[in-house]
Amino acid sequence: MSGGVLRVLPLGGLGEIGKNMTVVEYRGRIVVVDTGLRFPTTDMLGIDLVLPDFGYLRDRAADIEGIVVTHGHEDHLGALPWVMRELDRSPPVYGGRLTMAMARSKLDEHKLRDVPLDDMRPGEELELGPFRLELVHMTHSIPDSCAVALTTELGTVLVTGDYKFDQTPVDGLPADVSRLAELGRQGVLLLCGDSTNADRSGFSPSERDVGPRLQEVFARAPGRIIVTSFASNIHRVQQVIDAAARLGRKVSLVGRSMRKNVNIGRSLGHIEFPEGALIPPQEVEDWPDEKIVVISTGSQGEPLSALRRMAHNDHRMIKLHRGDTVVFSATPIPGNERAVNETVDRLFHIGCEVITSRDAPIHASGHGYAEELKLMLNLVKPRYVMPVHGDHKRIRLHGQLADAVGIDPEDVFRGENGLPLEIDAGGARYGEPEQSGMIFVDGVDIGDPADVALRDRRMLSGDGIFIVVATVSEQSGASVVPPEVIFRGVPFVEQADSLVEEIRHEVERSLARAANDGVREIDMLQQELHDDLAAFVYDRLRRRPMVLPVVVEV
Amino acid sequence: MSGGVLRVLPLGGLGEIGKNMTVVEYRGRIVVVDTGLRFPTTDMLGIDLVLPDFGYLRDRAADIEGIVVTHGHEDHLGALPWVMRELDRSPPVYGGRLTMAMARSKLDEHKLRDVPLDDMRPGEELELGPFRLELVHMTHSIPDSCAVALTTELGTVLVTGDYKFDQTPVDGLPADVSRLAELGRQGVLLLCGDSTNADRSGFSPSERDVGPRLQEVFARAPGRIIVTSFASNIHRVQQVIDAAARLGRKVSLVGRSMRKNVNIGRSLGHIEFPEGALIPPQEVEDWPDEKIVVISTGSQGEPLSALRRMAHNDHRMIKLHRGDTVVFSATPIPGNERAVNETVDRLFHIGCEVITSRDAPIHASGHGYAEELKLMLNLVKPRYVMPVHGDHKRIRLHGQLADAVGIDPEDVFRGENGLPLEIDAGGARYGEPEQSGMIFVDGVDIGDPADVALRDRRMLSGDGIFIVVATVSEQSGASVVPPEVIFRGVPFVEQADSLVEEIRHEVERSLARAANDGVREIDMLQQELHDDLAAFVYDRLRRRPMVLPVVVEV
Repeated sequence: MSGGVLRVLPLGGLGEIGKNMTVVEYRGRIVVVDTGLRFPTTDMLGIDLVLPDFGYLRDRAADIEGIVVTHGHEDHLGALPWVMRELDRSPPVYGGRLTMAMARSKLDEHKLRDVPLDDMRPGEELELGPFRLELVHMTHSIPDSCAVALTTELGTVLVTGDYKFDQTPVDGLPADVSRLAELGRQGVLLLCGDSTNADRSGFSPSERDVGPRLQEVFARAPGRIIVTSFASNIHRVQQVIDAAARLGRKVSLVGRSMRKNVNIGRSLGHIEFPEGALIPPQEVEDWPDEKIVVISTGSQGEPLSALRRMAHNDHRMIKLHRGDTVVFSATPIPGNERAVNETVDRLFHIGCEVITSRDAPIHASGHGYAEELKLMLNLVKPRYVMPVHGDHKRIRLHGQLADAVGIDPEDVFRGENGLPLEIDAGGARYGEPEQSGMIFVDGVDIGDPADVALRDRRMLSGDGIFIVVATVSEQSGASVVPPEVIFRGVPFVEQADSLVEEIRHEVERSLARAANDGVREIDMLQQELHDDLAAFVYDRLRRRPMVLPVVVEV
Repeated sequence: MSGGVLRVLPLGGLGEIGKNMTVVEYRGRIVVVDTGLRFPTTDMLGIDLVLPDFGYLRDRAADIEGIVVTHGHEDHLGALPWVMRELDRSPPVYGGRLTMAMARSKLDEHKLRDVPLDDMRPGEELELGPFRLELVHMTHSIPDSCAVALTTELGTVLVTGDYKFDQTPVDGLPADVSRLAELGRQGVLLLCGDSTNADRSGFSPSERDVGPRLQEVFARAPGRIIVTSFASNIHRVQQVIDAAARLGRKVSLVGRSMRKNVNIGRSLGHIEFPEGALIPPQEVEDWPDEKIVVISTGSQGEPLSALRRMAHNDHRMIKLHRGDTVVFSATPIPGNERAVNETVDRLFHIGCEVITSRDAPIHASGHGYAEELKLMLNLVKPRYVMPVHGDHKRIRLHGQLADAVGIDPEDVFRGENGLPLEIDAGGARYGEPEQSGMIFVDGVDIGDPADVALRDRRMLSGDGIFIVVATVSEQSGASVVPPEVIFRGVPFVEQADSLVEEIRHEVERSLARAANDGVREIDMLQQELHDDLAAFVYDRLRRRPMVLPVVVEV
């Protein structure tokens, strides 16, 4: 035993679903579990991705023993390239084989070829400074998902990653409940557990149950079948392939990420095609409709996805028509409902049949339901619990499940991003908050959401912009040519010409006033012009476009 | 009988949910049923409302005998002020008493005080040119909902409006099935029926069932109760009042539209408060928590609504705290899920209990399910059917219900906005498409969605804008002062200063090239500058902000 303090600092994934990142710290050394991202909401105009604010790690780069990634989903792996770019050294990265293959592919896209990636097998142990690292095999909607056990002198922290207790997984490898139980018997100090489905009662259905249901749906389809699912759900893709094969249909893959993931999955032995089953999309038309299954991206209605293009009659190779059946083997992630509904309705308009998981049990969640969360708690018997991977609602419900299996509510910590939990021989408590929050990826750059660019875009997107160029004499400050007035994105301005004329006059008046008041400094002039014109425009349009005066001295 | 042609032209509500408007035309005369609007989707930047394109009516204003509004919801009534503003005369408007009271309130807000509004009672008959108009009482989630029967020499067109067959409505007035049956016996030529819940099997639950469930939920709440629902759902509000009264709780109303609708409802006798039950919001704090029910707007997570403010600790009068129970007596309209989820999660973060219709049956839809749609078809026995009020999916499913009750699929018309159905003694068929689509309300103005303003806003919202001001000599075309470079909303530009400097050089280079090529015309110069700078900026930032060059000649 020791007098050290174990710190567990969530930098993402609490009070939200996405951008998971947990920092585990002991004796000044750090292991990071997951480097996830989120996708922007519609009000984050022009933003491409949202990352956890990992400024804390930037300052402590020298202390990082390693980064462990639980599985290959974007909300656990996606921020890795940015983390690596921003740290002044590349700590080693650990994870399952598929996870590391996906990490490699991601880092390659960012031309980061020197990051050390280490495949680990579940059960293997590794010393990382004061930590002993072990991966525990779990089941989830992507192969090679693992829980992470980090053991120090003080005890073991177990971060579950995303998991369900699938008793009949497609690859025949259920979660390693024996090892979880063993860790529990040895004493788990802290459990950081997935809360995603804390609001669903009972047990989640097995992934294996989806296959026969898909086959039933396929058997009723008179023409072509287009199945959409998450590209990374490799076992689902395998089950689609199997169902197609049993019905004597050829399979074709469309969508870049579908082809990429299937390739990675094949190379690692997770996906197998029967001889001759796979045909390229450009050959789909060469076969009778009833001999075809197309597996496509776009289950979330993503704007550029293959399925969305097909639904808008805008796909190069696949033209949908009456008689085609489109099968959504996925549920919309909250926030994507409208995009998915729009895609579905387009498909109905074309005349397709559409089957969703509301019509048939053709999807199974990758996250365990309430009884599975309780099973985890009972297996691991943690001293302390910190529910992670959930919004405030799910974290609260997960806490209630801990209560239900007899864990003292005092030992359940409903944390926040940036709030470290500090554990020592004397107990557990919150420490002082650390820097945390969001950073935005905007094109190739990353930055602070408070950055003025986004504020400006909100303003521009609402009411547009007026630009006024006044050319004044350096000597007298008098306007020497008529002001230019340009607007973009401003609400339908009736009589635009006369408005522009009035604004010109207002500019001249404002300049004259300023000259009268002895205002000659350009910044001041621009400020006065801005205030006068903004008031004038609001008075005329009842809108607040951005007003940008430019004064040029000649 | 006659040789005339009856035209039924839907201008909104087909292939979408919202902005319902149907034009019925006979012998050159027109009756319009409903003038609804839709709310903008998030990609309609800065747009306030979406209306049906009623250009067809503008050209035919002189022929309009009247406008009939089935009920007071925005998607049936909301466009009325704009229609009235744009027509060069005000045709009389007909509808139930509450509907007309709500229309009056809306027109008043637009200072349209001269529109003739006529209350009609169900059963009353009115001659409007070649039409006989009759309203048929229906049940829905707002009182005074009616179907519209328009009878000509050719037969009767029945537009159902929104309806369910609630056998035990709160006001004791079920839909007038006798009159529907009678119309059916006399012969209905065309049924235009609500398709909203064509995808739900069985019968919808009665509104009256909600009351006892609400009371059960209330009885378990230890502290204050905040109930949110649609403000226009007057019977629901009454049931909340009744449940509160039975438990000895006071009721307070927050949110402008809640107070307004309750006032209108009270003045027409639809809402009654027990003596002393209603207290103003500022007195809520004076009562013990367990004596309070607050009825609030915000069931859809609307940004400025009372509940959203409360959830963000930003409401002037009501501060939520642990122990409060928030009851969502409504379901999210598709597209609002994220806003509702965010509000719910904020409430969990505060420590409130949250009860939604997923937790308890505390909401009943106002639209009939599949069996009710079949009942309507069987009562009315229409010669032809045009499903309305639904996206393509629901319209197709409604058509399948017609098929199920024995209507020949040839007689079911799955229409489109702008596509008139033409019926005469010889049969029914589609006519030539008429102008239709969306128009946008942007501030006080209305306009065409193809308007360049919105396109500009999209561009501005994505990557921002670069403005370059070049001042050139009128004589020589040479640059006389260094170019000004200003940007707004452009992605986090590292080394902005050096980029601006480079752009200045690029401007000078571009101007020199143009001068060399003899380009002196300002428009041409600006075009060249634009093309050169856009290419330069893309090359440097991999983004496409708007580039706006202004050339000033001195």
